Amino acid sequence: MTEFNAKTRLFVDMPLAAQQRVTLPDAHRHYLVNVMRLAVGAPLTMFNGHDGEWAGHIAEISKKQCSVDIAMQIKPQINCLDLWLLFAPVKKARLDFMAQKASELGVSCIWPVRTDYCQISRVKDERLAANAIEAAEQTERMDIAAIREFAGLFSVLDQMEDDRLLIWCDESSAGSPANNIAAALQAAPAHDKAAILIGPEGGFSPSERKQLDGRKNCLKISLGARILRADTAAIAALSCYQSICGDWNGKMSS
Amino acid sequence: MTEFNAKTRLFVDMPLAAQQRVTLPDAHRHYLVNVMRLAVGAPLTMFNGHDGEWAGHIAEISKKQCSVDIAMQIKPQINCLDLWLLFAPVKKARLDFMAQKASELGVSCIWPVRTDYCQISRVKDERLAANAIEAAEQTERMDIAAIREFAGLFSVLDQMEDDRLLIWCDESSAGSPANNIAAALQAAPAHDKAAILIGPEGGFSPSERKQLDGRKNCLKISLGARILRADTAAIAALSCYQSICGDWNGKMSS
Repeated sequence: MTEFNAKTRLFVDMPLAAQQRVTLPDAHRHYLVNVMRLAVGAPLTMFNGHDGEWAGHIAEISKKQCSVDIAMQIKPQINCLDLWLLFAPVKKARLDFMAQKASELGVSCIWPVRTDYCQISRVKDERLAANAIEAAEQTERMDIAAIREFAGLFSVLDQMEDDRLLIWCDESSAGSPANNIAAALQAAPAHDKAAILIGPEGGFSPSERKQLDGRKNCLKISLGARILRADTAAIAALSCYQSICGDWNGKMSS
Repeated sequence: MTEFNAKTRLFVDMPLAAQQRVTLPDAHRHYLVNVMRLAVGAPLTMFNGHDGEWAGHIAEISKKQCSVDIAMQIKPQINCLDLWLLFAPVKKARLDFMAQKASELGVSCIWPVRTDYCQISRVKDERLAANAIEAAEQTERMDIAAIREFAGLFSVLDQMEDDRLLIWCDESSAGSPANNIAAALQAAPAHDKAAILIGPEGGFSPSERKQLDGRKNCLKISLGARILRADTAAIAALSCYQSICGDWNGKMSS
């Protein structure tokens, strides 16, 4: 048997099956050849988000593309839990960062949300997607977080199922141990799907607070008394969720 | 009474007392005048790491310095818990980031540690310190995380008190729900001081693992099955600690 000791792991948006040759586009050729400095014969693994993980070797490199011979599937598909990150977007580098970290922490959906005190008026979906994919490759997850289009908070709440537990990171209950995220999550009702909501600097407006306070299945939580940046709050809340209710605690997607 | 609705919060390394005028160095003058665009009369708050938080107004601006009239103390000193972050350093932007986030998440000490598989040979203490201070200003903590000098893992372990709970983020137990950080921290012995240890990409060497495995008061924990970057792992572990054992859960420094 060939040993697959591949360090390169690539997301490709195409069908994958054993004993097939696939042709990768120029962006992948550039990455494999110029960034990773791989040559013909080099091993790599590939995944497409729904067919598990596959091992193969580079078969040919031409000027504009690169082909890979797929040997076999080495891991079955495992999906992340149904966990959304809803957040008022932040500026460039921190937005990239938030998408990368959310992907590493196993969210199924990244959804930028326009709130009353949000300072950002446009979000590049393709940039969020590129960051989510790059992090999925590195973190060895097999599915890719979906990117939803920037939308207003009330519209997002309307589109959300009633039985999705909404975990509202409420800066105004900051420092209240009664709202401490760990205690709140331990007492949370059993649920199949959840969403974590992170507000902008400055928090939520009175009308937004009223709407959230009135929502069923909404858990208001605190991340301590120190003021956290939005990206820190997102990573903190996602980590606590995964360790208490999520896949770090052995929960599997159904 | 004057109202102090200051948005500027400044760490100054000097004594602070009511009804005094303090003279700030050029770097602070530059920040206040050129970055924050403040003028004479503008309110600000200041803290020095041990005397609580003080309100004042800009009294004078000259070419090389800036003076502030301190009115009164507005918050007593509160220190963060005795929680260290030990980590194999990563490259520039991520290192800045790690120091900022650790400071936001309330560590008392940031200590870069040389391990066998660590790729970095030098760490700029002053850069770590600048990032820790900037984050302390923003996150509204009143003390500043101490920066310890880059040192070998065994030396750091030797210098560490026996009764400091060592929380070892062990990538080789990744995905084991038995080692899940939340469960492990809930079952952890009562302790006054703790340290979280994050390894380099590639993890710890056999001799390092042996040393850690043999150490008393060492909790081996997992952060799930996905591979996390070192900075993500640090933020995740610190968040879980603060929510379960730390000040998000109402614990105060003694």
